[in-house]
Amino acid sequence: MKINYQLLKKETHTQARFGILQTRRGEYETPMFMPVGTRATIKGLTAEQVQSTHAGVVLANTYHLWLRPGEDIIKEAGGLHRFMNYPGPILTDSGGFQVFSLAKDKEKDISEEGVHFKSHIDGQNLFLTPEKSIEIQNKLDSDIAMSFDECPPYPVSYEYMKESVNRTLRWAQRGKTVHNNEHQALFGIVQGGEYTDLREYSCKKTVEMDFDGYSIGGTSVGESKEVMYKMIEDGVRYLPENKVRYLMGVGDPIDIIEGVCRGIDIFDCVLPTRIARHGQAFTRDGKINLHNHQFLRDFTPLDPTCDCYTCQNYTKSYLRHLITSKEMLGGTLLSIHNIRFLIKLTEELREAIKKDTLLEYRASFIEKYNSKKL
Amino acid sequence: MKINYQLLKKETHTQARFGILQTRRGEYETPMFMPVGTRATIKGLTAEQVQSTHAGVVLANTYHLWLRPGEDIIKEAGGLHRFMNYPGPILTDSGGFQVFSLAKDKEKDISEEGVHFKSHIDGQNLFLTPEKSIEIQNKLDSDIAMSFDECPPYPVSYEYMKESVNRTLRWAQRGKTVHNNEHQALFGIVQGGEYTDLREYSCKKTVEMDFDGYSIGGTSVGESKEVMYKMIEDGVRYLPENKVRYLMGVGDPIDIIEGVCRGIDIFDCVLPTRIARHGQAFTRDGKINLHNHQFLRDFTPLDPTCDCYTCQNYTKSYLRHLITSKEMLGGTLLSIHNIRFLIKLTEELREAIKKDTLLEYRASFIEKYNSKKL
Repeated sequence: MKINYQLLKKETHTQARFGILQTRRGEYETPMFMPVGTRATIKGLTAEQVQSTHAGVVLANTYHLWLRPGEDIIKEAGGLHRFMNYPGPILTDSGGFQVFSLAKDKEKDISEEGVHFKSHIDGQNLFLTPEKSIEIQNKLDSDIAMSFDECPPYPVSYEYMKESVNRTLRWAQRGKTVHNNEHQALFGIVQGGEYTDLREYSCKKTVEMDFDGYSIGGTSVGESKEVMYKMIEDGVRYLPENKVRYLMGVGDPIDIIEGVCRGIDIFDCVLPTRIARHGQAFTRDGKINLHNHQFLRDFTPLDPTCDCYTCQNYTKSYLRHLITSKEMLGGTLLSIHNIRFLIKLTEELREAIKKDTLLEYRASFIEKYNSKKL
Repeated sequence: MKINYQLLKKETHTQARFGILQTRRGEYETPMFMPVGTRATIKGLTAEQVQSTHAGVVLANTYHLWLRPGEDIIKEAGGLHRFMNYPGPILTDSGGFQVFSLAKDKEKDISEEGVHFKSHIDGQNLFLTPEKSIEIQNKLDSDIAMSFDECPPYPVSYEYMKESVNRTLRWAQRGKTVHNNEHQALFGIVQGGEYTDLREYSCKKTVEMDFDGYSIGGTSVGESKEVMYKMIEDGVRYLPENKVRYLMGVGDPIDIIEGVCRGIDIFDCVLPTRIARHGQAFTRDGKINLHNHQFLRDFTPLDPTCDCYTCQNYTKSYLRHLITSKEMLGGTLLSIHNIRFLIKLTEELREAIKKDTLLEYRASFIEKYNSKKL
């Protein structure tokens, strides 16, 4: 078995879906948030700590693992799961986003064949192609691989985006042709920027290729929230109901809610761990910054209703002490909380979908979340 | 109850002692190694992870906590145990060592009253006295407080050391006079550098004051191993058998063995966590550096006989990947292993004392530990 998505319930008033993602490593309910383990590690967390957040699928980055330690090392280790000691499912991205975002403009060259660029580690000349991306992911032996796509900046002209969408379609087909891992699902990616007709074209053509799941790409690249939500609507409109839908790189709580309302099943983002290392934590009342003096004597947990290890054991005063002292445990504890916060959010969204109360849930969550600007 | 030390067995061929340290937070066998939590955190480890190493007493630094967050915050939090969420016993040092080692020479001024110096955080002028050190420790509410002592550099003249030893004795008395925490034990510190008669004098005079335990100070300040071992022998010779003996700042495995052979019961050191953050791990075959290329494809644990979380779950290849990628999880996982390694060592030393086989154990451990220079 690769994966299978079972749609169990559509919410009455929105496009939201409650479903189950079946994998050879267990069944996981959707909507779902995936923590990001860029270099085969969710930064600062042991596998045990990741599991304590009730995480299901986690994401690892093909680009980073290709460069270090290299996919052959991970294959020799017995695959990514054994290498990083994560027993749950793992999704690998294609490396495309990193190539397009990490390499400077004049240091990358996009051709039909693939992308020439310089390594961000040592400046080495590298060449990534759709085939190479899939070959690396096959060796990593993740449960879900992503097609190699072009991620244009925002905004680009209609003409450029049209050309890019077609190239991404050809790349998707090339990747699908060489994909060779019987355990591994392969997802297609819908691009098209903010152009509704290109999203429709990209979506329909990608679906024709019949992937195991579909992803919405090209968001979170500098566009406004309104444009992003429209990209999602345009991106999912022609997707089949019996396949899972993944919105890449989105992890703001409100964006997750808006994505779910528009029919998204899976999200991933570095946000919860990145802001944690900078001393920020999600709360029901919005994001808080533990550097703030107001927490010096605050001997309550980040969120009294939260069941995470951090909230069960540590106070804001102590977390502030760790963060202001630049102690690494601060980033770890806030990461545990922030990941759990987003996963808990998806649990509540699932309940709201089941009860057809998603709009009320959204209104109430957003009102509280925006109530204080801390 | 403050603390009580019960000597259960003296080894036949050495000065080594097997005993039990009774505290209001449980009973702990000695010899024992204490992990160091300088700023109320064993760097990178949750309380749960610290406990997974079978740690008993842990150490926290008065100087650092005085400066940040301040002893009053910790008192308001309900004491250091609640602040840092550590249920086991905590020993606080006096702050003296940090004042003498962190402040530059021209930025500190030692008088009979105490030490004027500049904060290493913001350059603020500070004044630490024996009374102030004890008052801070009383508020921190640690289980064991240390007397404020002068830690002269090495070497100093006989005349200076004699003057310093007498000052430390007067400071010890002043601290004892103001000590006011019914839960908290107070230890005296034997100084005297490498001068046997000054060690004898310091020891006898300190013991006359009747502390709850005694510490050997002034080692690990640049002296040779031979001088350090002599300092230990000179330092413990006149200590009473019914009080626990603590060698401050020593954590090299061989030094721990040599210390135990000379009658030391408790050790502490930042070594296991500091070298961990630099990618080094203790093994039975000596210290290894995970940066080394030889571990790239080493899919075995750091130590196949080790029961720590790291060895049970991760390979050297993965640890090397984390360390070379500067991922914070690398420091955390190596710290767990290194602390467990030293605690396991003390467990084995206890067994060897019980069986009167300490000299054989020492020879065999040292031969293996020095066998490879990696």
